[in-house]
Amino acid sequence: MDLDAIMRRWELEQLFTDYVHCLDADELERWPDFFTEDCFYRITSAENYEASLPLGLIYATSRNMLKDRVSALREANIYEPQRYRHLVSSIKVLKDEGARLDLAANFLVVRTMQEGDMTLFAAGRYLDQVRRDDGTWKFARKNVVLDSRQIDTLLAIPI
Amino acid sequence: MDLDAIMRRWELEQLFTDYVHCLDADELERWPDFFTEDCFYRITSAENYEASLPLGLIYATSRNMLKDRVSALREANIYEPQRYRHLVSSIKVLKDEGARLDLAANFLVVRTMQEGDMTLFAAGRYLDQVRRDDGTWKFARKNVVLDSRQIDTLLAIPI
Amino acid sequence: MDLDAIMRRWELEQLFTDYVHCLDADELERWPDFFTEDCFYRITSAENYEASLPLGLIYATSRNMLKDRVSALREANIYEPQRYRHLVSSIKVLKDEGARLDLAANFLVVRTMQEGDMTLFAAGRYLDQVRRDDGTWKFARKNVVLDSRQIDTLLAIPI
Repeated sequence: MDLDAIMRRWELEQLFTDYVHCLDADELERWPDFFTEDCFYRITSAENYEASLPLGLIYATSRNMLKDRVSALREANIYEPQRYRHLVSSIKVLKDEGARLDLAANFLVVRTMQEGDMTLFAAGRYLDQVRRDDGTWKFARKNVVLDSRQIDTLLAIPI
Repeated sequence: MDLDAIMRRWELEQLFTDYVHCLDADELERWPDFFTEDCFYRITSAENYEASLPLGLIYATSRNMLKDRVSALREANIYEPQRYRHLVSSIKVLKDEGARLDLAANFLVVRTMQEGDMTLFAAGRYLDQVRRDDGTWKFARKNVVLDSRQIDTLLAIPI
Repeated sequence: MDLDAIMRRWELEQLFTDYVHCLDADELERWPDFFTEDCFYRITSAENYEASLPLGLIYATSRNMLKDRVSALREANIYEPQRYRHLVSSIKVLKDEGARLDLAANFLVVRTMQEGDMTLFAAGRYLDQVRRDDGTWKFARKNVVLDSRQIDTLLAIPI
C-alpha cells in the first residue's frame, strides 16, 4: 500500500463520515449531494437482497428522486420527531476500478424519539459503488441492506 | 491530503481510542490527563445543547475539577458495579486552526451491570476542541451531547 | 509516526474488517484462515478473564480445532438461522515487537433472528496477538472477552 492508496482510504472514510453526520444532523437537503446524478438508492432487507428482489422500502434511480423524497418528507412532516445516530465500521473495498469502487461497510443506527426512548433501530450493510466526480467521491449506487425484515413501516428518513 | 494530514488523522483516532479504553477499563485516575488544565467538560442532552442551556449533568471547568470528580466517585462508591463499552465512529474535523481543532464524533455506550444485564446506555455526539499540548493532543473542550434526555439519574461515570 | 507505521495501521484495520465481514457473511469455512496454525482462540467473560480462569465458552488451541468447530456447526446445524453484525472500534496496539503485536479493540455484535428480532447480542473487547505470516497478519491469539457473563448458552457461531 502506497501513499496514494492510503490517501484514498482516508477519502472513503471521510465520505461515510460526512454522509452520516449529514443524516444525524437532519440536514436532509444536503443528502442528495452525496450521490451522482444518475444514482441508484434503495433500502431493502437482506432476505430480499439475497433473493434479488429488485424493489426496496425506499427506492430511487436519480438524484432528483432523492431531492423529491426530501421535499416530500419536509412537507408531509408526518413522522414523529426523532434523532438518528449512525455508527459505521469496517469499510472494505470489494472491487477497485480506479475511479469506480465497490464498497461494503457495516452500520448500526440508534433512534431516539422525542420523549427520549432509545432503540436499536437498524443494523446491516451498505453495499455501495462510489465514483470519482469532480475531485470528490460520490455514491453511484447505495444499497442499504437491513439485517432484519421487521422494519418500522413508518421508516421515512434515509439511512 | 498530504502525509502530515494523514499523520494527524491517526493521532486523532488514537486520542479517541486511548480515551475510551481508559474509561472502559475503569482507569478513571488517568482520565483527567486527556484534558488541558483549563479544560471544559460536560455531559448534556441534545435538546439542552441546541437551546444553549449552559449546564449539564456533569460539568467541569478545569482538570482539577475532573480529578475531584474521580476522587468523589472512588470514595462514595455509590454506584453499582458496571462496565462501559464505547464504540466511536465518524470522527470529523469541523474547524482547523493548526494546533487547535474542533471535532465531532459519534459514540454509543453499552452498559453491563454486575449481574450481566446489558443495555444500550447512551448514544450521541462528542463535540470537542483539541489542542496540541507538549507534543500530544488534549481535550480543551468536550461536550458529550446525548441524543436522549431520559438519562439514568445515577449517571456517575464519565462518558 | 512514519509512512511504515501508517501502512501497518491500515493493515490492522483491514485485518479486523476482513475478519468481521467473513463472520457476518456466514463464510465460516474461511474463518480459520485468519489464524496461525498454532493459534489460541477463546470466548470468555470479563469476569473469568480477570480471574485468570483458563477455559472459555469456546476454546481452541490450533487452527485445526477451529476447522473442526466449523465442520461440527455445519453438520449439527442446530442453531436457529441468525445473522451477526459486528461493529469494531478503537483498535489499539498494546505491545509492539515488530512482527508480533498485542492488540485491543472494542466490539459490539447485533444478532438478527430469522423472524427479524434484533438484539444487542454481545459487547466486549478483543485482546489479541497478531503475527506477520507470509506477508499478512494472522491472529496467533484471540481472546473474545465479553462484558456480560449472561451469555446465550446456544452461543455457537464465532465472534
